Amino acid sequence: MPENPNATTTHPRTVALLGGGVIGGGWAARFILNGVNVRLYDPASNAVEYVQKVLANARRAYQRLTDAPLPTEGALTLLDSVEDAVRDVDLVQESAPERVELKQKLLAAASRAAGPDALICSSTSGFRPSLLQAEMDHPECFLVAHPFQPVYMLPLVELCGGARTAPRMLDRAAAIFRSIGMHPLKVRKEVDGFIANRLGDAISRESLWLVHDDVATLQEIDDAVRYSWGLRRAVMGAYRMADGGEGMRQTIEKWAFKWPWSRLTEKPNMDEAFLDRVAEQADALVKADPIETPTVQKRDDLLVAVLQGLRSQGYGPGETLMRWEQRLRERAPRAQLRDGSGPLLASTIAVPSDWIDVNGHVAESRYLQLCSDATGTVTRYIGIDAEYRSSTGAYYTLETHLCHLGELHAGDRIQVSTQVLGVDDKRLHLFHVITREGGEQPMATGEQMLIHVDAATKRSRPVKGDVRESLWRLAKVHAQLPRPERASASIRLPLSAQAAG
Amino acid sequence: MPENPNATTTHPRTVALLGGGVIGGGWAARFILNGVNVRLYDPASNAVEYVQKVLANARRAYQRLTDAPLPTEGALTLLDSVEDAVRDVDLVQESAPERVELKQKLLAAASRAAGPDALICSSTSGFRPSLLQAEMDHPECFLVAHPFQPVYMLPLVELCGGARTAPRMLDRAAAIFRSIGMHPLKVRKEVDGFIANRLGDAISRESLWLVHDDVATLQEIDDAVRYSWGLRRAVMGAYRMADGGEGMRQTIEKWAFKWPWSRLTEKPNMDEAFLDRVAEQADALVKADPIETPTVQKRDDLLVAVLQGLRSQGYGPGETLMRWEQRLRERAPRAQLRDGSGPLLASTIAVPSDWIDVNGHVAESRYLQLCSDATGTVTRYIGIDAEYRSSTGAYYTLETHLCHLGELHAGDRIQVSTQVLGVDDKRLHLFHVITREGGEQPMATGEQMLIHVDAATKRSRPVKGDVRESLWRLAKVHAQLPRPERASASIRLPLSAQAAG
Repeated sequence: MPENPNATTTHPRTVALLGGGVIGGGWAARFILNGVNVRLYDPASNAVEYVQKVLANARRAYQRLTDAPLPTEGALTLLDSVEDAVRDVDLVQESAPERVELKQKLLAAASRAAGPDALICSSTSGFRPSLLQAEMDHPECFLVAHPFQPVYMLPLVELCGGARTAPRMLDRAAAIFRSIGMHPLKVRKEVDGFIANRLGDAISRESLWLVHDDVATLQEIDDAVRYSWGLRRAVMGAYRMADGGEGMRQTIEKWAFKWPWSRLTEKPNMDEAFLDRVAEQADALVKADPIETPTVQKRDDLLVAVLQGLRSQGYGPGETLMRWEQRLRERAPRAQLRDGSGPLLASTIAVPSDWIDVNGHVAESRYLQLCSDATGTVTRYIGIDAEYRSSTGAYYTLETHLCHLGELHAGDRIQVSTQVLGVDDKRLHLFHVITREGGEQPMATGEQMLIHVDAATKRSRPVKGDVRESLWRLAKVHAQLPRPERASASIRLPLSAQAAG
Repeated sequence: MPENPNATTTHPRTVALLGGGVIGGGWAARFILNGVNVRLYDPASNAVEYVQKVLANARRAYQRLTDAPLPTEGALTLLDSVEDAVRDVDLVQESAPERVELKQKLLAAASRAAGPDALICSSTSGFRPSLLQAEMDHPECFLVAHPFQPVYMLPLVELCGGARTAPRMLDRAAAIFRSIGMHPLKVRKEVDGFIANRLGDAISRESLWLVHDDVATLQEIDDAVRYSWGLRRAVMGAYRMADGGEGMRQTIEKWAFKWPWSRLTEKPNMDEAFLDRVAEQADALVKADPIETPTVQKRDDLLVAVLQGLRSQGYGPGETLMRWEQRLRERAPRAQLRDGSGPLLASTIAVPSDWIDVNGHVAESRYLQLCSDATGTVTRYIGIDAEYRSSTGAYYTLETHLCHLGELHAGDRIQVSTQVLGVDDKRLHLFHVITREGGEQPMATGEQMLIHVDAATKRSRPVKGDVRESLWRLAKVHAQLPRPERASASIRLPLSAQAAG
């Protein structure tokens, strides 16, 4: 279901997290990087240290994932008790270990301390919400909000209310999760394990049988999936396939439960010998082939690449990413002159991993793309918006001179600053400098000549009105800056070389 | 398992396909686009028409997937009998409907006609090879080679031999499938459904239970998967996760078969009412939300995006893609001089529709991409290949001067011709002209200065040996051409404009 572009979002200011393990740490990273303060309760002595580690990985992944301006990070505060943690927060998210009594106790304490209107969610992978809300003071404010690991990367959060949950609480939760880039899915009925994990569990069961029966090793099972339908599953489910001409009904009649393809109806003897075998294969997979065994960072880079691929198609999780970026951009400050009178600074971006070509380099056309984007920053700055472009005109590029002076790498945070070298009635002469964030050393420069073109006739026409005034103001400020050494240079070899041979 | 870069590949010249339906048509497209002739036997009256349709989609997808030079397409020939089809081919691939007697009959006929050493494979999704080879004359030459849909996009092919299969036949088949961009996986034991489909079947069973129990609709199930672990599955299996600190043994002890999360142990009553409900949900999904229901082309575009994302990481299916492209480049014919002594002509390409930006234009960075590709044509022409790049060096771009003189549109067939303006020990000065195919009017020109860089030190070094000789020969021929008017031009406004304001 494409996300409704007008779906409510509510950006929270502060949330309480009960538990900062793998799941709680992932929540912390997602909230903090979205500018939300996190009040953490976790009795483990290394809780903050662990969350900081997850946060560092998430920060790195987000820098690769998006060039939208991330907000100032939220603060992380460790509290000594559930009661202190949940004070005045917009949301309490419990992510304790999967023990029902422990969760019930934490949730009851949170409910008592947080007051009658506080939204309280559990990250449980399996327990039904009716069971978890049993001992709460305000069970109507409780629901399950089940995320997927890595929480800061995967967009799904399954929302499931219990018998006593107020339906409006699901909407409130959905609006919050949407604001931090997630895709909330309401589960329409209570069920153990909700939806996605039930399907995942089915795969695990069958996989263990294949190992048990010596049909395949864990490595072979993993390969079989990721080289085949695992690729498809990233882009669509089994029921979205645009395959043969057959309808779903025929397909199901023909295939479902008809073939002797699974041993799901049985349970293997999980004895020590079998467990040893599985553990051995898992260890072998990790040790024998370290390049292929991704670290957290490699995993994240791969997810970034897939998400960016889906974004280029505006599809599914890629669409969720696009909408989140749109919200980030709307909330971001406008471009500014450096030190009030220097070049115009475009916002910092991180080099996405899909800019890297087969030889491990950023393709040269990406440098031009950075210049085009910086030109866009200039034209927006002088007041050219969608309305102006459709009613009046726009600047088209006539020429570009790019110089490559250093090499960019995936994840590098870079900034493009632009100086207006000259203007006349129709033309605009710009000089872009690409540097690493905070650096002075140019990685590349791009000089461009543009011409102002009429929206209707597509012929050149003079620029007029407010846009002209803003542009002349900017050009006047920039006329005070030193002219870049490389401006108006030409490409040539010494004469001797030109006569080569 | 990362593909062994030295793994054997055998590029077949002609294959016989028995059956040209969804799977057979996909095989046909993959073989034909890889330059392999296809002899098709399919009694259906519209078989060729259907295969042509699949081929058209595949051609479109490959043009988006790769910029490696695809070979001249293989020929498609329809034959009237199995006997005619299998004559003198390198491989027979059977993809008939899943009826064991039909497959046995076809395979037996193929085996009799093809002779004692012909490799014969079946695309069966489920039958064991021992069963299928029962009536064959040369059962030792038979194995299952099970692909995944869309066959021309997904790299996996599961290879499974029967009791009477000669092990060397699996190697022979693997070498052939590798040569057409696939990832062969040998299944170590006969089992119904092999590996990937058993896991897929497990998901289907659990999904149908969720629908049966009204927990979720098909749409919700699809969303739950593709927004959560479906994304992860594209990049790694369940046993490659770099998650918490827990080992696989602990994880399995804690989770496997322990939770009441699945109804896999039962089979629902597949009555009419239930089938109607499933069919209705599937129809609703397709009709209510046509944008979100991908056509074959949309599905392929999404897979292209994911595969290209994985290629940027050199990982899994992305690595398979890279190796295939490498082989395509090695096999590609060299570029040619126009009229024997004119500029070097890169092969004609069609402007892909995804080059068009939100404003309906080809983004300016794409013009630079065309120039980069043309530079690649030049460097390949003078003998710089993968081996040279890893052992010796490569040309890196120092500067580019682009001039926009006309506008390209999606589908325009364009050609880039390149003139060497000058060379010295380290530098190479090129001038590209982009025109419509057969046209003289330049749409854009691109002037570039490149420098020869050492593979190990990444510092500039003189070009030597055969590459130098080829380059000097080319430069000498091109020194006779008139120097382009725009060469060595610079970008500047009249002085009056530079003092604007």
